[in-house]
Amino acid sequence: MLQYQAPERDIEFLLFELFRVQDRWAGIPALSEVSEDLARAVITEAGRLAGEVMAPINQSGDEAGCQWQDGVVTTPPGFKAAYDEMAGGGWLGLSGNPAYEGQGMPKVLGCMIEEMFWAANSSLYLYGTLTAGACICIDSHGSEEQKQTYLPKLYSGQWSGAMDLTEPHAGTDLGIIRTRAVPHADGSYRISGTKIFITSGEHDMAENIVHLVLAKLPDAPEGSKGISLFIVPKYLPDGSGGIGERNGVASGSIEHKMGIRGSATNVMNYDEAVGFMIGEPNQGLACMFTMMNYERLSVGLQGLGAGELAYQQAARYARERLQGRSSTGPKNPDGPADSLLVHPDVRRMLLTVRTLTEAGRAFAIFTGMQLDLAKHADDEEADRIGQLLTPIAKAFLTDRGFEAAVLAQQVFGGHGFIREWGAEQIVRDARIGQIYEGTNGIQAGDLIGRKVLRDGGATLEALLDGFDVGTVDAEYRPALEAAFGRIRSALAHVLAESNADPELPGAVATDFLDLVGYTLYAWFWAQMATAAGDDAFGRGKRECAAFYFARLLPKTLGLEAGICSTSACVMGLPDEAF
Amino acid sequence: MLQYQAPERDIEFLLFELFRVQDRWAGIPALSEVSEDLARAVITEAGRLAGEVMAPINQSGDEAGCQWQDGVVTTPPGFKAAYDEMAGGGWLGLSGNPAYEGQGMPKVLGCMIEEMFWAANSSLYLYGTLTAGACICIDSHGSEEQKQTYLPKLYSGQWSGAMDLTEPHAGTDLGIIRTRAVPHADGSYRISGTKIFITSGEHDMAENIVHLVLAKLPDAPEGSKGISLFIVPKYLPDGSGGIGERNGVASGSIEHKMGIRGSATNVMNYDEAVGFMIGEPNQGLACMFTMMNYERLSVGLQGLGAGELAYQQAARYARERLQGRSSTGPKNPDGPADSLLVHPDVRRMLLTVRTLTEAGRAFAIFTGMQLDLAKHADDEEADRIGQLLTPIAKAFLTDRGFEAAVLAQQVFGGHGFIREWGAEQIVRDARIGQIYEGTNGIQAGDLIGRKVLRDGGATLEALLDGFDVGTVDAEYRPALEAAFGRIRSALAHVLAESNADPELPGAVATDFLDLVGYTLYAWFWAQMATAAGDDAFGRGKRECAAFYFARLLPKTLGLEAGICSTSACVMGLPDEAF
Repeated sequence: MLQYQAPERDIEFLLFELFRVQDRWAGIPALSEVSEDLARAVITEAGRLAGEVMAPINQSGDEAGCQWQDGVVTTPPGFKAAYDEMAGGGWLGLSGNPAYEGQGMPKVLGCMIEEMFWAANSSLYLYGTLTAGACICIDSHGSEEQKQTYLPKLYSGQWSGAMDLTEPHAGTDLGIIRTRAVPHADGSYRISGTKIFITSGEHDMAENIVHLVLAKLPDAPEGSKGISLFIVPKYLPDGSGGIGERNGVASGSIEHKMGIRGSATNVMNYDEAVGFMIGEPNQGLACMFTMMNYERLSVGLQGLGAGELAYQQAARYARERLQGRSSTGPKNPDGPADSLLVHPDVRRMLLTVRTLTEAGRAFAIFTGMQLDLAKHADDEEADRIGQLLTPIAKAFLTDRGFEAAVLAQQVFGGHGFIREWGAEQIVRDARIGQIYEGTNGIQAGDLIGRKVLRDGGATLEALLDGFDVGTVDAEYRPALEAAFGRIRSALAHVLAESNADPELPGAVATDFLDLVGYTLYAWFWAQMATAAGDDAFGRGKRECAAFYFARLLPKTLGLEAGICSTSACVMGLPDEAF
Repeated sequence: MLQYQAPERDIEFLLFELFRVQDRWAGIPALSEVSEDLARAVITEAGRLAGEVMAPINQSGDEAGCQWQDGVVTTPPGFKAAYDEMAGGGWLGLSGNPAYEGQGMPKVLGCMIEEMFWAANSSLYLYGTLTAGACICIDSHGSEEQKQTYLPKLYSGQWSGAMDLTEPHAGTDLGIIRTRAVPHADGSYRISGTKIFITSGEHDMAENIVHLVLAKLPDAPEGSKGISLFIVPKYLPDGSGGIGERNGVASGSIEHKMGIRGSATNVMNYDEAVGFMIGEPNQGLACMFTMMNYERLSVGLQGLGAGELAYQQAARYARERLQGRSSTGPKNPDGPADSLLVHPDVRRMLLTVRTLTEAGRAFAIFTGMQLDLAKHADDEEADRIGQLLTPIAKAFLTDRGFEAAVLAQQVFGGHGFIREWGAEQIVRDARIGQIYEGTNGIQAGDLIGRKVLRDGGATLEALLDGFDVGTVDAEYRPALEAAFGRIRSALAHVLAESNADPELPGAVATDFLDLVGYTLYAWFWAQMATAAGDDAFGRGKRECAAFYFARLLPKTLGLEAGICSTSACVMGLPDEAF
């Protein structure tokens, strides 16, 4: 059975010893009241909620799934009570705007809480994270009245949020959506159309559901420049903080999915539903992307949480399962066999899972720090670096999270394939992170196109320049310098060739993202190994760093070589030959 | 919905144009009656069965699963009829011994049929492949009476086979099994105990089920040298070709699994069941491994089939799905959007799936050829090379098959995660191939330990020496020479260090297997590109080869670097720190 214990020691090491976020907070007025003690208390309490409330219903939620009947969606047993505890504790408004009853906590702290909630029960937490995303969008682009009407209700979880983008023929390509919004005399709009894949679009958790819906005005320009964003509440607000009339938005069905089966994924039908525009006409995509960038980091944290959850299960199994003997003589001579940990290949799998997860946690914190500096300290370079890191965080954390889940499952042998142990559920649940909020291929294209080539690689160079190899132990420096050199040579190649070979950036985008990701992880491993003390925890960090440098960082050799190619081998095969 | 069309053109290109198996068959007495025309007819008929009978019930079989009630297992609707067609066509005895009503076809041809059946419906084919495995075991180690009693019934599918190895506490480590076999006065044995994960242990396909059960005699030595193998039929043969009394073997339950849900995975209970020993006392593991080696190639073919099935779905979806525009200007200006094929990263995914699958097919045929030469022509070097290639075939084909399935799923975006399209089922079904018949970690250990280090690398060197780089187009030679060099340098490192660092082979086993696998695929791509004609098929082969060499072969750089390390970074972390 799946068990989860929040990795508090590692989180606190990273936050307070390695990155010393408490010193940064002290220097930022909006965060100066967040003390290390407060943050530690928040982490402990979130860890308790995750481990004791959310995790115990993770497997049963997968087993039961959601049920749809005549437009009513019933979530798995126990989900509503756990949601109430999550909402009641203020967790959904943790990083929310204090002016509207949010908690105003740093994003970097929120990231670690999110990791725990994703790990403990990703289906359940999806009912919360969509709400947090909707809040960011309303807080950034809504009118004062909209903020007052919706934010306190959403931060408290009394109402929940959903983002309604995809249509059957329009996923990534939102420019071709067909949902229509017709202006009404009272200044509102009437929305008609159908959306699919709407997470938390209908459920039984909250008294109201606030849909953020992309639709086109009658006179809208073609394509992505003609999309507007609307608030479409399930129940119309009654103007005094309560709910009034039922709106013309309803769930037509829910999807049967590979994983996150406790999360309701709805087909939503809008039949002249009342909608209220957020922001300016035809600026809907820009509004949506404000929130998407935050959500993308959040989805990355889902991958991170999956890796941690998977590691905990596999490590426990490997310690306890007796099977075979060490090739260098019995290590458990009084038992019928040695533990799985005597087998080097089992250790290779566990260490891969662990080193990817722990470096991923450092990376998530580093990214969250940039977002805090951008938001609360108007740091423009941090903003640019945060924008650069966001697609990496989304794609690399979810790709490595899935890889970690699959490797952890492998440690279980046949027991990993049956449902009982839960290892296979982690794989099925983690898989979605690579797909939603923009597939990882979209992230890779965003990175190399908008974030790297558009400024001639300046932000990426600035990021690398900020990593002072002289600050980490000498043993890591040569490999780090070489890895940074690989990024620079790959960047130089793509910059030099992409005018003559315009498909090259797309053709190598994923490898480029991976090259940067594996190299960043090496940097964080060097930092962690250098900063950790001389206790068992610190020695463990150095053992893991040694593994990462010897066995995983070399992947960058092949990635650099693959990038330093042309697009011909990708684009050459005629369409009809596929 | 999942659709499958057997890749006849590619199979026939490989068999009859590249490898020219018809020339080899002509020179082997036992195979000399197998003409190219006959083989082509067999391929066409198998393709029809796979595409028209087996594939259409693949998704419905997953949806329905198997049902257990009071020891009776009901397979999904349509499975029994399809099984009857598979059995009635003689497909289960295709490579069987003609002396007992097998078809005596070459293994290399059987491999291609197996690929089709696995691809079309892996749950359904599992009821057949276990039978084929049981036949190999009985044919190799059974008495004349056992062969006459069981083989014709099994080849015809009237009876089916199962292999009962695993126990709750004993998976890979069969030395610690507890199932007991007590000699009986009539020369038979009474078997008591419990086994788990018994594929096809109970079902409603065949009138009898022939279990091959590993058990210990009362006076057996400890460990793997004290295991014997027994035939335990569900119904005892009546001596005249029919079935008699019900034996004391029954299904206690079936497992709920991640995938292959149409295949019944049983807990089997033996209550003084009548068993008949195969082979000599305490030689059971050796008998079982005769069959396991064949089964391991078969499981590899499951991975290959998954890759082909996944490719077909994803390529069709990518051709038809209109989404976004080419970055170099619209390619479908009259439509609402271009097809997914204009996006380089989508092509990267499809080409990865395709190049891994098509090279895997060549590799499977090459391996099957070694087994044919060993079995029918007493070729000792082919036997050694076949033994060397078997663990690579099992692990590399299933690892790449799973990777291919995941990438193909990614091409579908959100539609890949819902059950409707079937892309997620391929992933779930393919996952088991990496686990059963010896996990892929076990295969990697078998390769580097028994197959490479034991003879000082001689067989591996012989394999590489057999690849004459001068016979392929010049453009591929430098990269091939370099890749062969990486294997040789990795081999030299492990040979030189493994005495002083005895955990090194285990620590790098998986990377070593992957290094050999990726390099073999490059060799086969160079061969295919060289041998293919100047038509569209041949040009496609050369485009794919270019992709493989530019984008996938470079993975060998990192693998070599990872292997040329020490085991310290894997073994250093203390057990309690996991």
